[in-house]
Amino acid sequence: MGDRWGTGRIEAFSDGVFAIAITLLILEVGVPEAAFDNLWRGIGDQWPAFLAYATSFITIGGLWMAHHGIIRRLRYANSWVMRINLGLLMAVSFLPFPTKLMAEAIHRTDAERAAVIFYGATLLVISLLYSALVGAIARDRELLESEVSEQEISAILVASTPNLGFYVGVIILAVFAPQVAAFGFLVIAIVGVLRVRGEQTTPPATAKPL
Amino acid sequence: MGDRWGTGRIEAFSDGVFAIAITLLILEVGVPEAAFDNLWRGIGDQWPAFLAYATSFITIGGLWMAHHGIIRRLRYANSWVMRINLGLLMAVSFLPFPTKLMAEAIHRTDAERAAVIFYGATLLVISLLYSALVGAIARDRELLESEVSEQEISAILVASTPNLGFYVGVIILAVFAPQVAAFGFLVIAIVGVLRVRGEQTTPPATAKPL
Amino acid sequence: MGDRWGTGRIEAFSDGVFAIAITLLILEVGVPEAAFDNLWRGIGDQWPAFLAYATSFITIGGLWMAHHGIIRRLRYANSWVMRINLGLLMAVSFLPFPTKLMAEAIHRTDAERAAVIFYGATLLVISLLYSALVGAIARDRELLESEVSEQEISAILVASTPNLGFYVGVIILAVFAPQVAAFGFLVIAIVGVLRVRGEQTTPPATAKPL
Amino acid sequence: MGDRWGTGRIEAFSDGVFAIAITLLILEVGVPEAAFDNLWRGIGDQWPAFLAYATSFITIGGLWMAHHGIIRRLRYANSWVMRINLGLLMAVSFLPFPTKLMAEAIHRTDAERAAVIFYGATLLVISLLYSALVGAIARDRELLESEVSEQEISAILVASTPNLGFYVGVIILAVFAPQVAAFGFLVIAIVGVLRVRGEQTTPPATAKPL
Repeated sequence: MGDRWGTGRIEAFSDGVFAIAITLLILEVGVPEAAFDNLWRGIGDQWPAFLAYATSFITIGGLWMAHHGIIRRLRYANSWVMRINLGLLMAVSFLPFPTKLMAEAIHRTDAERAAVIFYGATLLVISLLYSALVGAIARDRELLESEVSEQEISAILVASTPNLGFYVGVIILAVFAPQVAAFGFLVIAIVGVLRVRGEQTTPPATAKPL
Repeated sequence: MGDRWGTGRIEAFSDGVFAIAITLLILEVGVPEAAFDNLWRGIGDQWPAFLAYATSFITIGGLWMAHHGIIRRLRYANSWVMRINLGLLMAVSFLPFPTKLMAEAIHRTDAERAAVIFYGATLLVISLLYSALVGAIARDRELLESEVSEQEISAILVASTPNLGFYVGVIILAVFAPQVAAFGFLVIAIVGVLRVRGEQTTPPATAKPL
Repeated sequence: MGDRWGTGRIEAFSDGVFAIAITLLILEVGVPEAAFDNLWRGIGDQWPAFLAYATSFITIGGLWMAHHGIIRRLRYANSWVMRINLGLLMAVSFLPFPTKLMAEAIHRTDAERAAVIFYGATLLVISLLYSALVGAIARDRELLESEVSEQEISAILVASTPNLGFYVGVIILAVFAPQVAAFGFLVIAIVGVLRVRGEQTTPPATAKPL
Repeated sequence: MGDRWGTGRIEAFSDGVFAIAITLLILEVGVPEAAFDNLWRGIGDQWPAFLAYATSFITIGGLWMAHHGIIRRLRYANSWVMRINLGLLMAVSFLPFPTKLMAEAIHRTDAERAAVIFYGATLLVISLLYSALVGAIARDRELLESEVSEQEISAILVASTPNLGFYVGVIILAVFAPQVAAFGFLVIAIVGVLRVRGEQTTPPATAKPL
């Protein structure tokens, strides 16, 4: 009572932030005019920017899919779900900054280690906030649609945990081999998209709005 | 008659503007190349940008939650609600400008006082427009869903007022101690998110679209 | 048959473009660092940018309200409505370019006339495309919800026409007095928002999704 | 089971990315201050930017219409549809980069060939991913609404194929005449918008949300 929020606008707002954060990433990518004499090479030299772009895009894309699957199972949200979700969106919309930093810093021995670790730390924070969101939902059984089984909740909880370990591992790797670690984050993102499960509950045939 | 607007597209449009304004904030944050020799320090030196980013993000996030709670209680909007809402969105989408200004001006004795006051004045205008929106809705009882009680309306009206006093207070503080005031706006934003109430009305079990 | 489009996603996509175009406008506004010694004056000197920002924001905001009113009356769209709507969105998302140009060119005698005329011409094109959209809908009575009366259609058709005359008038004025004309566009935008009518049809009490 | 996704949020997220990618395109267009002495000429000299802007806008607009038509026919999505759709969105949100590159490179003999070919290759990848999306849906008859006929599916499959040939043709043309090819991509985009078919299935009279 007094602490219930409809899920429709959470989805709309979250989708908006995810979609914008994902689309802004490309704005930072560009070829300097000096490289126009040999444009193919100039494009190729931007590989750290493409790598950073693809990693952030796929990471947010996978997060969107997982987020979609969870919010779909909610009957309504409480204030903690709202706040943690807002924190998650804040971390996601922060991501373009470390993405740009990593893209610029690769090839500069001084800076690339710090930039890759900082990028990984941001992904770790996003992952922690996502786990906190799942945890807050799992703790309050009332929030969930009645047809959601305990088994499904456990499955989602388990699915959201291993990423944390991977991120910590690759961040430690970044201390010794930053460029290898940069590719490591891409691998985690791709695995994340491949592992995301759909909605177990069959949508009723009439459930299609618009 | 002739002056009714469905609420769905107001929500969609407002969510769009909120989500974009919130996500654009990060575009202005960056580390100058000269600071790449010691990137951790270079990132740390950006703290005014992070502070401004977090304050604006959390302020808009809290506003979105409060806005959500009010529009949910509307049966339809009239033209004044539409116009005030448009003014509110205009002030919100203006916010990235004073945010950037405050981030750049901190540490420059000449400019930081003006920048923090200008930032606070923008937040005050947003807060005033939000109060005007609530007032316009409360004045026309017809706009509200029939199950909304007088008590709820009073509670929302009261909740939207104290912020005005806080903003005026911190703006006065900014004349003497701009950096302290900058943190003051962050505190107001966080308190705002913690105080927002959900929807009192229980959403029916079938109300979930898509 | 084979030429029908649901209106929900037209609304979603149009709202997205409107919301983004409206929010991007602020990105171009900034105070050069040289003006930080006297920041209040530096902010004040940006008045052409604020004028251009407010004019474009209110113009698009009024267009969004009018657009909302029309699409709400559609049962479905045909391909011409889709194409004209796409053209309208293209003109709207083009607007940040002449907006920036006008903001930069005011105070430069060489450029300000051309910039204001170019800005006005873009608004005229937007207005023409909006009239074309209304015309395309009015021509095909089948597209409209059955409860929409002939009278309402005429009223909307008439309401969408006078703006064209105002724009032509202010563009001619811009040849002689560009700065006055720049304020003229703001007046047209404000009048537009004040004149927009809501939906005549009363939404049913149950029409609230989410 | 366990691999079903509601279509509503796919639409919302895709619309968001399409709308943002389409609206960001204008940010890169600007007239250098040196050209303010003769602003009309300065605007005219930006024709490669306008051409690139229009081509990308109309290409994405046509893709949005086609995408709309397909997702409308889905009952739900499976994981492969989600992943291919995410890939499609990634290619679409990448498009502002080659668009900017082509706009900058025209008139520079060294760079314009490479830039136009790179732009065309991006459009080809978008087209391939769209065909893959249609193919993935056509392969799993279960995903489609029951009233969708085999004939409709074939028609959509066929409609999505010829573009591939056109793109390859114009890319080859770009090797010999880059500027002609740049206009060729615009022609393909316009033809695409003109050819897109609406939804064959009549939406029920009550299907209008909001």
